[in-house]
Amino acid sequence: MDNQKFNKECIDKHLEHCGKWDSRSLVKFTTRDDLNVYYAKGAGAVCSAIKNQEIDFRKCTSAGRNVAVISNGTAVLGLGDIGTKAAMPVMEAKAVLMNQLAGLTATPIVINEKDPDKLIEMIVAMQDNFAAIHLEDIKAPECVYIETELQKRLDMPVYHDDQHGTAVAVLAALINTLKIIKKDKATLRVVVCGIGAAGQAIIKILNNFGIKNIIAVEKAGILKNNRQYNNPIWKEISQLTIGHTIIGDSLSDALKGSDVFIGVSAKNLVSAEMVNNMNDNPVVFAMANPFPEIDKVAIKDTKCQIYATGSSETINQINNVLVFPGMFKGLLEAKIKTITYPIFLAIAQAIASCVSQKELDNNVIVPNNISLEVVRKIVKVLVVKNAK
Amino acid sequence: MDNQKFNKECIDKHLEHCGKWDSRSLVKFTTRDDLNVYYAKGAGAVCSAIKNQEIDFRKCTSAGRNVAVISNGTAVLGLGDIGTKAAMPVMEAKAVLMNQLAGLTATPIVINEKDPDKLIEMIVAMQDNFAAIHLEDIKAPECVYIETELQKRLDMPVYHDDQHGTAVAVLAALINTLKIIKKDKATLRVVVCGIGAAGQAIIKILNNFGIKNIIAVEKAGILKNNRQYNNPIWKEISQLTIGHTIIGDSLSDALKGSDVFIGVSAKNLVSAEMVNNMNDNPVVFAMANPFPEIDKVAIKDTKCQIYATGSSETINQINNVLVFPGMFKGLLEAKIKTITYPIFLAIAQAIASCVSQKELDNNVIVPNNISLEVVRKIVKVLVVKNAK
Repeated sequence: MDNQKFNKECIDKHLEHCGKWDSRSLVKFTTRDDLNVYYAKGAGAVCSAIKNQEIDFRKCTSAGRNVAVISNGTAVLGLGDIGTKAAMPVMEAKAVLMNQLAGLTATPIVINEKDPDKLIEMIVAMQDNFAAIHLEDIKAPECVYIETELQKRLDMPVYHDDQHGTAVAVLAALINTLKIIKKDKATLRVVVCGIGAAGQAIIKILNNFGIKNIIAVEKAGILKNNRQYNNPIWKEISQLTIGHTIIGDSLSDALKGSDVFIGVSAKNLVSAEMVNNMNDNPVVFAMANPFPEIDKVAIKDTKCQIYATGSSETINQINNVLVFPGMFKGLLEAKIKTITYPIFLAIAQAIASCVSQKELDNNVIVPNNISLEVVRKIVKVLVVKNAK
Repeated sequence: MDNQKFNKECIDKHLEHCGKWDSRSLVKFTTRDDLNVYYAKGAGAVCSAIKNQEIDFRKCTSAGRNVAVISNGTAVLGLGDIGTKAAMPVMEAKAVLMNQLAGLTATPIVINEKDPDKLIEMIVAMQDNFAAIHLEDIKAPECVYIETELQKRLDMPVYHDDQHGTAVAVLAALINTLKIIKKDKATLRVVVCGIGAAGQAIIKILNNFGIKNIIAVEKAGILKNNRQYNNPIWKEISQLTIGHTIIGDSLSDALKGSDVFIGVSAKNLVSAEMVNNMNDNPVVFAMANPFPEIDKVAIKDTKCQIYATGSSETINQINNVLVFPGMFKGLLEAKIKTITYPIFLAIAQAIASCVSQKELDNNVIVPNNISLEVVRKIVKVLVVKNAK
């Protein structure tokens, strides 16, 4: 199907029900008694019991299970700062995926506020509606500050999908990749290109996983920890990398002799020649959105062994949907309020484990994106982990 | 059932499903194609089309049908300023009633913000999620300012239930009452006691309906338009009343020779003697919450012909649930953005018309609170009205 026809079909399908997300009632109002129990007098009794601290409001209202999917529309997909109106289809998608794949209650909320502190204030003021916060499509660098502040101020899981969802999905794919290429994580050399929301989170999770030889590449070149940076993020990230050991500053210099390329940057930054200058059995995760750093046609003329993108157009699709439905279900079931690196690593391992030894192949490094098994395994690992 | 047992049962029923409100998906994710159409690539196509103004975001997202039920928890039922946590059961009730009675999408949103301007800013920032705003349980006098400002700034219906929901329900009950007692609205003398959110709105709607002899009574006494008031609301309301023609200042003075008492004030303010000093065939709507101005036992010793309360414990229950589900469905179907007095009057007439001439009785002045016929008739009248 050509792009124009596909786009038309997608728009028609979104017009069909006026979007994808809906609310519903868990109770019926058939008789006057129902009204008495669930509305005026009965609801009043529950309000009073909450006020008098006789019952926990999170046990008798949706605030105990509702995951907010919140965006200010400043970095939507690969489309950039398109605003809150145009961001809605993505927020609805995330909310309904949580519902369909994990049976969760989830509410899309767009907030037209770009000032990080004001946005934080608004989310804090709304905390009593929600059991967890899924931040979505908020641009870097503000997204890191917003997430960190909210984690400090709210007694519930706060998670920015564009950072950690991508990072966990990449790690899951890499865990399975290492089983195929039989290289050791301790000596593996990984180039991460693009130090935005996703790039930073990927470098941190790889570092936590035990990969020590990471090279970070920005538009300005390779980050080196023996250089002075005014940008605090570049400074922090450079400390986790070995960029200073590389001669030269370009992406091409970084890739020479490396084992893995992870791109969360921009289209066509990687040439066939650059891939061929990598170590033997190179791995390329070209995840720029919507067009990868090197496309599926160009990659065929290289010695690349394992190729993946973020797009559904390649067989290996590394996508956040592997992560967030199961993760939120597991966090809520296990009553985990703070998400730590051990939790992210456990989720990545759970996702990776859904591809059996038999299925594992250059073209099968991640499980099916809409697998209920993935959700089940993530939930199990979080519940077990927290019980320990 | 005694109160304690009833309260326990209500709390248990609210614990059963962890509240009453839930989200759901309107689409299924079964295949990779579904993911393509509704999530990553497909949602991206819809985002772009919205951004490029090729389609209206309210036609392809829930923003075209979602009614926000918003409160800051400052005046919940008769419980006062109990905060956002304790307010949740009421917000959920309103949202699920809209869903169950009128098939609407509705989302409870509590916002822990008492400053009116900050609250307004937050709701304005969230407008792209919603097609209409139902304000709920916000205390007077701020509620009037908040509603008015939001009506100016938002291109959608904004309605405060505690003001207009009560006023429309009262008018519907009064329209049927006049059919029974056969008195003329032009000469009817009505006392409204309690000039909070509901009282102000009741006086304004009665005035718009054509009742000219209204007496407003506050804690401080009868409002008189020949007195100076610093309180701008008292000043405005006194202009709509004939309090200056009454000798004396008390509620008792106001009731002498009046035809109708409408109370939205506090319990036990009205004695049997005060009712007996009213005109013949007196009407008493004693709607203080949770205990009326005169209770159903005390009223029996009076000459009162028609007695109603806001509570489910009397046969004539005047409740906002008669109004808001049908009203929002009608407003959205008819694409009405601004709610005017002619609209409120039409809704009151539609509600009143649901009690047939045959059913009409001292004990049947309003239809069943969970009647789908009420919703249908309100929708019809709004759609027809707007088509004219």
